[in-house]
Amino acid sequence: MSQQGLSPMSFPTAPDKTALEQGEALAPRFDAKGLIAAIATHAGTGEVLMLAWMNDEALSKTLETGEAHYWSRSRGELWHKGATSGQVQVVEELRIDCDQDAVWLKVRPQGDGGACHTGAVSCFYRVVGKDGRLVRQ
Amino acid sequence: MSQQGLSPMSFPTAPDKTALEQGEALAPRFDAKGLIAAIATHAGTGEVLMLAWMNDEALSKTLETGEAHYWSRSRGELWHKGATSGQVQVVEELRIDCDQDAVWLKVRPQGDGGACHTGAVSCFYRVVGKDGRLVRQ
Repeated sequence: MSQQGLSPMSFPTAPDKTALEQGEALAPRFDAKGLIAAIATHAGTGEVLMLAWMNDEALSKTLETGEAHYWSRSRGELWHKGATSGQVQVVEELRIDCDQDAVWLKVRPQGDGGACHTGAVSCFYRVVGKDGRLVRQ
Repeated sequence: MSQQGLSPMSFPTAPDKTALEQGEALAPRFDAKGLIAAIATHAGTGEVLMLAWMNDEALSKTLETGEAHYWSRSRGELWHKGATSGQVQVVEELRIDCDQDAVWLKVRPQGDGGACHTGAVSCFYRVVGKDGRLVRQ
């Protein structure tokens, strides 16, 4: 995934809907806060691990380094996932959706193999049961 | 997934972080616009189909009916996915993440089996290649 020379804030704006949806140019549509949604799934199991956010710098760093970078909304800073926890996410593939406002990363979590700060492998460790209560699985 | 009597805007607020992250109460944290992110994956293949948004009514309707409802940000209205396209999403499982601001739906797309308005099965039909260009797959 290494992309020498791709600097932050280097993304173009798609000139029209056809370019946005069918074109070859990565032209992410960041929202009013400068963010797009990022879904991380486990490259081995396919499990959805987490939903996080990227600004242009986080997306650029992810593409440059091959390791997932996000924007921490709670801390208001660039977040190299795993820098402190060891749960670095090596990116095997990065996809973008039709209208380029969400990305999907297939990752290999390093360290203990998890992604969630609670200790669970995935942040989505609870299912909504038939009675509307959450069941840990 | 049918949940008789669950009316829109019936969700509680978690009293503390422990309840939010470890509790049995579904207490979604809608953002300033009243929305949470919703990831839909194919219940059969595991592929990520789309990233959309739900308000409290959309989440309630999804739980009530067992079919995915979203909030269309572009149209500013409740969106019963597939009502016009036939791509109804039958929900096999609904999960919520650690801090309850994102849900993950495992769905069976009806109709032509797809989820994307472009005709692709998944909205994530383009991979970012090594040169930074998008490659359709």
